[in-house]
Amino acid sequence: MGENLEKLKTHLRKISKFENALSLLHWDLETYMPRNASEKRAEIIGEIAGYTFKEFTSDKTFELLLKAENEAQTTEDKALIRVTKKEFEKSKKIPPELFIEFQIESSKAQNAWQLAKKEDDFNLFKPHLEKIVNLSKEIAEHLGYEENRYDALLDNYEPGLNTKDLLNMLPSLRNFLINLLEKIENSTRPKKDILIGKFEVKKQKILSEFILKKLNFDFNSGRLDLSEHPFTITISHNDVRITTKYDERDIRKGIFGTIHECGHALYEMGIPEKLRGLPIGNGASMGIHESQSRFWENIIGRSYNFWKYFYPKLTEIFPHFSNISLEEFWRSINTVEKSLVRVEADEVTYNLHIMLRFEIEEGLINDKIKVSDLPEMWNQKMKEYLGITPKSYKEGVLQDIHWALGSFGYFPSYMLGNLYAAQIYYSLLKDLENIDEKIENGEFIEILNWLREKIHSKGKIYEPQELISQISGEKLNPNYFIDYLNLKYKKIYNL
Amino acid sequence: MGENLEKLKTHLRKISKFENALSLLHWDLETYMPRNASEKRAEIIGEIAGYTFKEFTSDKTFELLLKAENEAQTTEDKALIRVTKKEFEKSKKIPPELFIEFQIESSKAQNAWQLAKKEDDFNLFKPHLEKIVNLSKEIAEHLGYEENRYDALLDNYEPGLNTKDLLNMLPSLRNFLINLLEKIENSTRPKKDILIGKFEVKKQKILSEFILKKLNFDFNSGRLDLSEHPFTITISHNDVRITTKYDERDIRKGIFGTIHECGHALYEMGIPEKLRGLPIGNGASMGIHESQSRFWENIIGRSYNFWKYFYPKLTEIFPHFSNISLEEFWRSINTVEKSLVRVEADEVTYNLHIMLRFEIEEGLINDKIKVSDLPEMWNQKMKEYLGITPKSYKEGVLQDIHWALGSFGYFPSYMLGNLYAAQIYYSLLKDLENIDEKIENGEFIEILNWLREKIHSKGKIYEPQELISQISGEKLNPNYFIDYLNLKYKKIYNL
Repeated sequence: MGENLEKLKTHLRKISKFENALSLLHWDLETYMPRNASEKRAEIIGEIAGYTFKEFTSDKTFELLLKAENEAQTTEDKALIRVTKKEFEKSKKIPPELFIEFQIESSKAQNAWQLAKKEDDFNLFKPHLEKIVNLSKEIAEHLGYEENRYDALLDNYEPGLNTKDLLNMLPSLRNFLINLLEKIENSTRPKKDILIGKFEVKKQKILSEFILKKLNFDFNSGRLDLSEHPFTITISHNDVRITTKYDERDIRKGIFGTIHECGHALYEMGIPEKLRGLPIGNGASMGIHESQSRFWENIIGRSYNFWKYFYPKLTEIFPHFSNISLEEFWRSINTVEKSLVRVEADEVTYNLHIMLRFEIEEGLINDKIKVSDLPEMWNQKMKEYLGITPKSYKEGVLQDIHWALGSFGYFPSYMLGNLYAAQIYYSLLKDLENIDEKIENGEFIEILNWLREKIHSKGKIYEPQELISQISGEKLNPNYFIDYLNLKYKKIYNL
Repeated sequence: MGENLEKLKTHLRKISKFENALSLLHWDLETYMPRNASEKRAEIIGEIAGYTFKEFTSDKTFELLLKAENEAQTTEDKALIRVTKKEFEKSKKIPPELFIEFQIESSKAQNAWQLAKKEDDFNLFKPHLEKIVNLSKEIAEHLGYEENRYDALLDNYEPGLNTKDLLNMLPSLRNFLINLLEKIENSTRPKKDILIGKFEVKKQKILSEFILKKLNFDFNSGRLDLSEHPFTITISHNDVRITTKYDERDIRKGIFGTIHECGHALYEMGIPEKLRGLPIGNGASMGIHESQSRFWENIIGRSYNFWKYFYPKLTEIFPHFSNISLEEFWRSINTVEKSLVRVEADEVTYNLHIMLRFEIEEGLINDKIKVSDLPEMWNQKMKEYLGITPKSYKEGVLQDIHWALGSFGYFPSYMLGNLYAAQIYYSLLKDLENIDEKIENGEFIEILNWLREKIHSKGKIYEPQELISQISGEKLNPNYFIDYLNLKYKKIYNL
């Protein structure tokens, strides 16, 4: 390998060690930090984040990139140059004052959002959201785009995918989902209330750890802790941590929240050491990352065969399930219903929640919608897609933090995750034999090894569309997801 | 305040934020880090520690110090200049190559020490210790000293105290302790075995937390966790964490370990925000720090009045103590005996363990003793001071990690802590009324407030001898400790 390429890697890995510290500071903030430390913690994070930004956007990075470019021979090294260059150029395009203003305003907007949600008053959030939208548009202008201003933001989360592609994809998928939902609504529902009861947190923890171990989550290279909102964070190579939250009344949150984060963690745990500390040592995109969490949470974790293996353990820990058949339990964890809150939505309605958000934020960024129109627009789309209307802002337009954070372009990742997951699943079925049998025997290592080979080991070397093409022979195609839902819910609801 | 002084403070506080991150990385390493992450963690810590060292020893620090010096008017600002300058000059005196060599050798020595202790083979450690001693001597030569090479190292832990002062102090203190021990050995012993049993960790935790709250440990600005070796660490202002270790068989370790660390933590929690992030925002010295832990652990925590308040709680949590009288319990937690291991030693014998170590390490640094003489020298002094001989290296010369770390000059801090604690206690008795009554009512806030006013709020503004003079009207005087022991152990052993 060339000398300059080596120098570039050393330089980037050096910066990444400060990012490792930042990850730990964030993890601790959400898990164990004493309450009164929050102000100082923000200052520490601000200082170190500022330093890593400064180092990454330094002339040194630029010079090393220039010199190393011609030395890159392998796919991996070429990808390193491409991804690093792109990130470098993007950071350079945003004027520092704008970046700082955005940070400050988004911090204020988060506080305002929290208060607005608590008070159920959209007007408390409105002026802040207006600022955030304007700043995001300004940032998009600096980043640049060809056709659609939203492209510039979407690219932060899903490189290589255009707003137009997404918009083209929506109508048929939406129609399918609305139709399926209609059919389901007209059939007999599973009993969901069997999942509601009194589930001791200590016992839920035992169950979660049991499942994690079986799914090959490596507790010597990771941890499971508690936090208000579940998340996955990589501190360093061999240190990938997930959190969960147990609901004493509803056993689903703990189980499927844990499996979801486990999916993210298995991705992170599978990224090779040689890529770590480099800009290609991450997931391919937010959508691909989400495909891994949704794959394990829904396709595997909500499958009948999965519970064929785990149901005895569940009834051992919570004996009251022994009165409920596996069949009944499986149907109940796959209940589909019209609901107001995204994070509680099932596989069928989830993407409708996302479409609504995507359409609204795309409209905001392209001046087709005003912030003041938001509550009405929200309720109108809820009525149209899900047939229900929120009675409060907090169950409606104020439910998610994303816009307060200024994360425009993020929401589509959730939908893309579901679509990629199904497409990946069908490729897996072609490649591996007797998948169902393995799942019902609690053997997941072959599935994981396949995912590692096809996805995890690649890090961010390939853009999502290239990666999914390598795996499945075609670009993102929502029909896999449609087929998957059709097949699964026909069985569950006898459609 | 002058502009340059302000700039200096900003510069130092900026560096301190990276030190905050380092503290968290260390805390996590000892508490929650997954096993496989240790190699990467060492790299992260190394990189960030290197950065803070580079920044602190930079020309910028030097220039700001020079410019700010004349602007310092207050005692606090003058102390800031003095302490910062001293630390800066010390760091500059050691050649970077020597510093790095020392880090590498001490890391190797720690591994060798662990193995040697496990295998009970001094020879495995010997060549490493020889290197560490030689490097420490070299460092001492670079740091400089007037009379005694050991002074240069002692100054790292106890500024303002000379080896000569220490050596002069020893004979009478040693004679007193050996005599007292002799008398105690010839009298009736308390029953220590009542403290041995089966103490559930969960219950010990409840007891520890109860005591910590009563001692005004602020759980909103701190935490209690578990680790292999108990320690106190400050992450940032309003974030002071302690750890403890519970022994299921011996209840003393958990209780007194926790109170000991609580003493350190109360000191750290009492350092004012305005000093934080500056070199004067720490404890005055290791000895003064240890005085706070020993004060709470021994003088308060092993007092009769303390247990008058806490014994009902103890018997509530561990009902088997209801068969044992408070008097009997109190005597048993103050059992004095000849023992081999420092960390398990009582108040009377503890300082004898320290003297032995101090004399040996002073001899090593001043070429009066060779590393190869160590085992014999150790056993000879053990016989002389404590009348017993270790049967193994691990219970003898290999028991402590300090020399593997290259922390020559540290051991005296433990003894000084005991001496300062007694001297501080007698001053407290003069200043506050009805101390005993307050303690037996579980009211510790006035004692804490007094310590805060006299010690904690001062940070590192004053050197230890000046601080103790302000409090007690005289420099360090071991007679207070002698008086304290005499009075206490006469009662316990009816001498």
